[in-house]
Amino acid sequence: MAKQDRAIRTRKTILAAAARVFEERGYQAATITEILKTAGVTKGALYFHFQSKEDLAHGVLSEQDQRLVVPERPSKIQEIVDVVTLHAHRLRTDPMVRAGVRLSLDQQAHALDRSGPFLRWGEILVNLLDASQARGELLPHVEPKETAEVLVGAFAGVQAMSQAVSGYQDLADRVCALLRHLLPNVALSSVLASVTLSAERGEAVYRELAEADAAEAAAEAAAVVEAEGVPVG
Amino acid sequence: MAKQDRAIRTRKTILAAAARVFEERGYQAATITEILKTAGVTKGALYFHFQSKEDLAHGVLSEQDQRLVVPERPSKIQEIVDVVTLHAHRLRTDPMVRAGVRLSLDQQAHALDRSGPFLRWGEILVNLLDASQARGELLPHVEPKETAEVLVGAFAGVQAMSQAVSGYQDLADRVCALLRHLLPNVALSSVLASVTLSAERGEAVYRELAEADAAEAAAEAAAVVEAEGVPVG
Repeated sequence: MAKQDRAIRTRKTILAAAARVFEERGYQAATITEILKTAGVTKGALYFHFQSKEDLAHGVLSEQDQRLVVPERPSKIQEIVDVVTLHAHRLRTDPMVRAGVRLSLDQQAHALDRSGPFLRWGEILVNLLDASQARGELLPHVEPKETAEVLVGAFAGVQAMSQAVSGYQDLADRVCALLRHLLPNVALSSVLASVTLSAERGEAVYRELAEADAAEAAAEAAAVVEAEGVPVG
Repeated sequence: MAKQDRAIRTRKTILAAAARVFEERGYQAATITEILKTAGVTKGALYFHFQSKEDLAHGVLSEQDQRLVVPERPSKIQEIVDVVTLHAHRLRTDPMVRAGVRLSLDQQAHALDRSGPFLRWGEILVNLLDASQARGELLPHVEPKETAEVLVGAFAGVQAMSQAVSGYQDLADRVCALLRHLLPNVALSSVLASVTLSAERGEAVYRELAEADAAEAAAEAAAVVEAEGVPVG
């Protein structure tokens, strides 16, 4: 394994450990010692990648950003539905996403700038809403920035409520209900008529992306075999 | 001062101290020792009213419930707007309300049942929406329970976002934007046309209630004077 690959893997291991510790203890009570122990790496390796607890938290927070892309759809409103429901699905199934969301809502993390995820989610949704508006999908009164911020804030609360009352069991239903309440006041009904929105949507998008990834990996492997010949046992 | 009055005052002092400590430290890190010190009461007095840290937290959480009544209005939708914007105003100005909301979103408070405030807010809004439906104010597809839960969850997130990005400075604007996004998909436009909804609404309702309280207290005092004669210096 090349040196660079190893460094990338170590960084991932550390972030996954940090996510687990932040999720369990909260930002304030989490310690680098516990993250080291959970990751099973040396102090030197950790400090090579992250200089402080705050740095680790920002690492976890920004991991979320890399998972916010969905395939192109016939309408931008569908892409908004997909990015939001996909995020809800990952929140239930991916500890890194869960840790990121919890950190951004951790009111005891005084030392941590938690505005980042709210602002980045805001940007993503503003971009989608701007594109949606340019295509004529939105109702005339909609201001993309305001609507994006309502959506980001409302989503954050709906997930917190779902965590408090059901341990995320009802998250997909609650997110679906939220979108059903908001979208009719955002998009034209002629656009909404062709939008797929159900409690299963997030998982379906997730599978679609996983299958596309697998197909891409297989195609790459096939290309390598073709170029280098069949690998020897 | 009667014995009972003193006990009520001591209980209030302890709850106010608990609210301050919970808000500052979070549930997990808060200690009864610090609450005792902040309240300036004896250990015996505290344990007379509250048996544990959990008990104190529930005390703070349920203080909120007593502040959720608004005057009758021409439409139940206006009452919903008033109870939500009033709560937002108190969140900025009343440490007890702020501590309650923070506790209910404290993801590290594993030992604490935090579903209570979500469920109680849900009940209050379901009751208002049921009454609204009975008067024919709602759109035909609305299910009061689902709409109430969307509203409770969305509000919780909008306040958390406002806290994270502006220290609550933009809370009234954000709550107003949330209601403007949700209500057109809940109530008939003929009802909405007579609803007052602005960033100043919460404070206006707060003042109205404070003035009504002051007038009531003055009337009571006047009645006592009339019954007992002018009190001697």
